[in-house]
Amino acid sequence: MAQAMFGPVYREIFPFWDDISEGDREYICQNSLALTYPKGSNIHDGTECSGVILVRSGSLRLYMMSEEGKDITLYRLHSGDLCMLSASCVIQAITFDVLVDAEENSECYVISGPAFAAVSERNPKIKIFALETAVGRFSDVMWVMQQILFMSMDKRLAIFLLDESARIGADVIPLTHEQIAKYMGSAREVVSRMLKYFANEGIVQVSRKGVKIVDKRRLRELVL
Amino acid sequence: MAQAMFGPVYREIFPFWDDISEGDREYICQNSLALTYPKGSNIHDGTECSGVILVRSGSLRLYMMSEEGKDITLYRLHSGDLCMLSASCVIQAITFDVLVDAEENSECYVISGPAFAAVSERNPKIKIFALETAVGRFSDVMWVMQQILFMSMDKRLAIFLLDESARIGADVIPLTHEQIAKYMGSAREVVSRMLKYFANEGIVQVSRKGVKIVDKRRLRELVL
Repeated sequence: MAQAMFGPVYREIFPFWDDISEGDREYICQNSLALTYPKGSNIHDGTECSGVILVRSGSLRLYMMSEEGKDITLYRLHSGDLCMLSASCVIQAITFDVLVDAEENSECYVISGPAFAAVSERNPKIKIFALETAVGRFSDVMWVMQQILFMSMDKRLAIFLLDESARIGADVIPLTHEQIAKYMGSAREVVSRMLKYFANEGIVQVSRKGVKIVDKRRLRELVL
Repeated sequence: MAQAMFGPVYREIFPFWDDISEGDREYICQNSLALTYPKGSNIHDGTECSGVILVRSGSLRLYMMSEEGKDITLYRLHSGDLCMLSASCVIQAITFDVLVDAEENSECYVISGPAFAAVSERNPKIKIFALETAVGRFSDVMWVMQQILFMSMDKRLAIFLLDESARIGADVIPLTHEQIAKYMGSAREVVSRMLKYFANEGIVQVSRKGVKIVDKRRLRELVL
């Protein structure tokens, strides 16, 4: 029963699915739940193993939070994405905490951490898959960190957009990423990626017409 | 010959050593080099796979660098530590660059990346070990990032001084403000100002020899 529901999806997502035994597949499916997290709810607070989360629809936000409540988005997960960082009992080498919220109503399949860990102990391919997924995400995180720490790229881009918007007296800045990069003395790739980050945060909208500021208050906060 | 030299050390460091074939052990040893990096030299510049580096003596510093040459220390490796991030050809999921310098004259055993990768392809245990080592280091990096992004400077400096004092087993930390700032990913002015504050509070004494901790209890209180 459980396999009929989860099996076809897991076959698509997990490259190891056909390499493990029927019993292990059955075990994973029996320890899976289909859950819908309401928009705004906290899915994982970093204190316990929430399991392996597969997003079916909606979107999840992973972030770190300071004691003072300041938070920073690490990345977002959408349909078809897998969250391994919420499964600290699967990857023991992860010793830091991230938090996960649902940004929209999100349908997820959640595999129990201990069940996934047990099966991965007897299937090296699963363990390798889980670790590689985690390492890949860390690479994204490092990029965000690098931009924020070094370049203050978020700050610089915020300043540029606010200045430019004030200069032309409009919320849409009719420049290409290439042009913005040139004005800022940066690379187009960096500007594009940071604009995408801003767009995901709901600060700007990016279109062929240019960059539209949709949340000026948050842009100003970045400059402080 | 190579095995006689490297084998006993690898047996201590690598938990998988006795589980792989004699041929694979031989292959790893034949593709190993004993190298001494002079103090201050760059070992890995992020552009190519430098292999798996095992520190035998001395110390290596891993850091990220901005286009402007500002750098931030991610962590340091000492005797017995293993550097996997320099082996991007072993762990393909790593897509960002770190740099590695020798902070002292450092004796290292270096295993060729392609050789290590080849053997790990036929030995899942090696692959799991390499990935777990990388994920463990990422956890350290995340901690550094969290400190820098979120924590206040007094706390950070207190943590640095306590950690460094514990590491070298002495109350005098023989570093300049410039060096401390570099390790902490901060500016010299910020570090000097905070050290002056600490000195005024009777927590440290600053001299040409370095920074002497005189009130460890209060330093620890800052960390809480």
